Amino acid sequence: MTTPDWRDLGLTGLLSSADSVLIPLHVSPDGDSVGSALAMAAACRHLGSRATVVSSDPPPETYRFLAGWEDIRRPEDLSPPFDLLLLLDCSSLSRTGRVRELFDTSGLPLVVTIDHHRKGERIGDYVWVDPAAAATAEMVFDWISDAGLPLEADVASALYTGIATDTGFFAYPNASAGTFDRAAALVRRGAVPDRIYRKISEDRPLQEIRILGRALEKLQVEAGGLLAWTALTREDMLEKAAGPDDTEGIVNRLRSIAANEVAILLVQTDSGHVKISFRSRKKVDVSELAGEFGGGGHARAAGATVAGNVDEVTREVLAAALSRLPQTEGDHRS
Amino acid sequence: MTTPDWRDLGLTGLLSSADSVLIPLHVSPDGDSVGSALAMAAACRHLGSRATVVSSDPPPETYRFLAGWEDIRRPEDLSPPFDLLLLLDCSSLSRTGRVRELFDTSGLPLVVTIDHHRKGERIGDYVWVDPAAAATAEMVFDWISDAGLPLEADVASALYTGIATDTGFFAYPNASAGTFDRAAALVRRGAVPDRIYRKISEDRPLQEIRILGRALEKLQVEAGGLLAWTALTREDMLEKAAGPDDTEGIVNRLRSIAANEVAILLVQTDSGHVKISFRSRKKVDVSELAGEFGGGGHARAAGATVAGNVDEVTREVLAAALSRLPQTEGDHRS
Repeated sequence: MTTPDWRDLGLTGLLSSADSVLIPLHVSPDGDSVGSALAMAAACRHLGSRATVVSSDPPPETYRFLAGWEDIRRPEDLSPPFDLLLLLDCSSLSRTGRVRELFDTSGLPLVVTIDHHRKGERIGDYVWVDPAAAATAEMVFDWISDAGLPLEADVASALYTGIATDTGFFAYPNASAGTFDRAAALVRRGAVPDRIYRKISEDRPLQEIRILGRALEKLQVEAGGLLAWTALTREDMLEKAAGPDDTEGIVNRLRSIAANEVAILLVQTDSGHVKISFRSRKKVDVSELAGEFGGGGHARAAGATVAGNVDEVTREVLAAALSRLPQTEGDHRS
Repeated sequence: MTTPDWRDLGLTGLLSSADSVLIPLHVSPDGDSVGSALAMAAACRHLGSRATVVSSDPPPETYRFLAGWEDIRRPEDLSPPFDLLLLLDCSSLSRTGRVRELFDTSGLPLVVTIDHHRKGERIGDYVWVDPAAAATAEMVFDWISDAGLPLEADVASALYTGIATDTGFFAYPNASAGTFDRAAALVRRGAVPDRIYRKISEDRPLQEIRILGRALEKLQVEAGGLLAWTALTREDMLEKAAGPDDTEGIVNRLRSIAANEVAILLVQTDSGHVKISFRSRKKVDVSELAGEFGGGGHARAAGATVAGNVDEVTREVLAAALSRLPQTEGDHRS
């Protein structure tokens, strides 16, 4: 996977030549998806193109503070043709969800892909992939800077949001010196770090805090602390008025417990299914564990959804997890 | 308050001329206190001085990962004379706690103060105060860089720790473009952001997670969500094996609830007293509220400790807090 020089390949030329550019968010859009898309839409307008941002899923309320959020459209409100499809932060066309239904595959317009994910099935007349980038927003920032396009405070906020969220606010291993350089430049262009942090991390729904309380109240540890888990029943979810989105942060909180190696959250969903989230720190490959239950993911973060009752599923999952823990339980520090 | 140029005033000269330099942490030492002190101790050694870091309170285990932490001494293990007392991140001599007992005031050696707090009663033959600095570690980094002293990976980690903790990992209003510039430089010198984040924010004691669960399970909101509060009894604390340190993060979690204006945590302590923590967002000055109960603090963060039972104290505190809430309860967004 090489990183082409867009100046040679003419990304600016491609975008300028398109009258109408469609920019999909990916499914379950995150801050990098939203921030990169809003920034590229602004850049397209500077190049004289009409850009439309579209989202298969409802655009997340968390990012409502970003300029342009209100203009994000749903696929059902749009009709082709578009001159150019700009895939940002999408490792494949299917990541655009229902947006791809706007086109039959033979009828795709010009396609440009800009992405930082390591693996994927990229399509495109122009494909720029840089797995060393912490966020697609870093790539967009570099291109806007090198292309000499205007970068207003609103765009700086969108790009800072993409970088900050994809690095866990500068806490993940992908936060590099270059990430901080870009953050500094974006702050100088008008991004306000504390405002963006507050918009994203505060103003949390009451039910999210309540269901976190219930989950931690029911927290169990096994194997001398190596395994931490909690399971939420349908009654827990109803009592706290919580939906699936409200439980997203819980498993990371379990993982933060000293001595923890594997953290597991089980949630009984509406549909008679149990959603399982796995995290690990150093030794256990939880993608293999999730694979036993028909799911998948990464070595340190994975998930699965299985049919059944949370109590039964919990027993099976705990047995599988315990069998994968390091044998030297007394010697788990490193 | 002006920012002197140390090159004119000779900080490097002062430190080089001292054979023995004593560097106290402040009481309740935080990451900036520890990080700045360890970095300055290394710099003093490069200048040919013997530097000793001393702490009135037990050095926090959280920062054990920093090189030099093991060498932090307690006042009882030391005896004067020292040629130079280097006060870092201390707004007054009293912030050094029992360290000042090593000297009678007439017998102070040369004193150097480097601090970023806005207010204070500084003493010193050399006083450098810069309230625009996000952390004392930023000032120390600038001085080490300008003085051309070596800056090893261990020192970069210590300074990054100071900057990251005093800015809430780049989330507080003091995080400036210059803060990100310095972070980038420190990462290039060997600071590893994700490792430092994990060391500080993860490996949390199990009882801290358990008491958070109990506190959130008991969470109450009043006045349409403007006021969020929770109260922990002696039984809660005992059941979760929690001490006062374990409840520190809870009130900020309450403050993060959407629509919240005032957050209050009440904890029954061992001694038949109730510790009250107040936070607010925009309108209510909680230092005045804390003042009603014999405490104090800042407009957005304050505290008090009162004798009594948590149930009774809660009633009084809630009544006082409700009377201070904005009257236009239906119109609390801004």
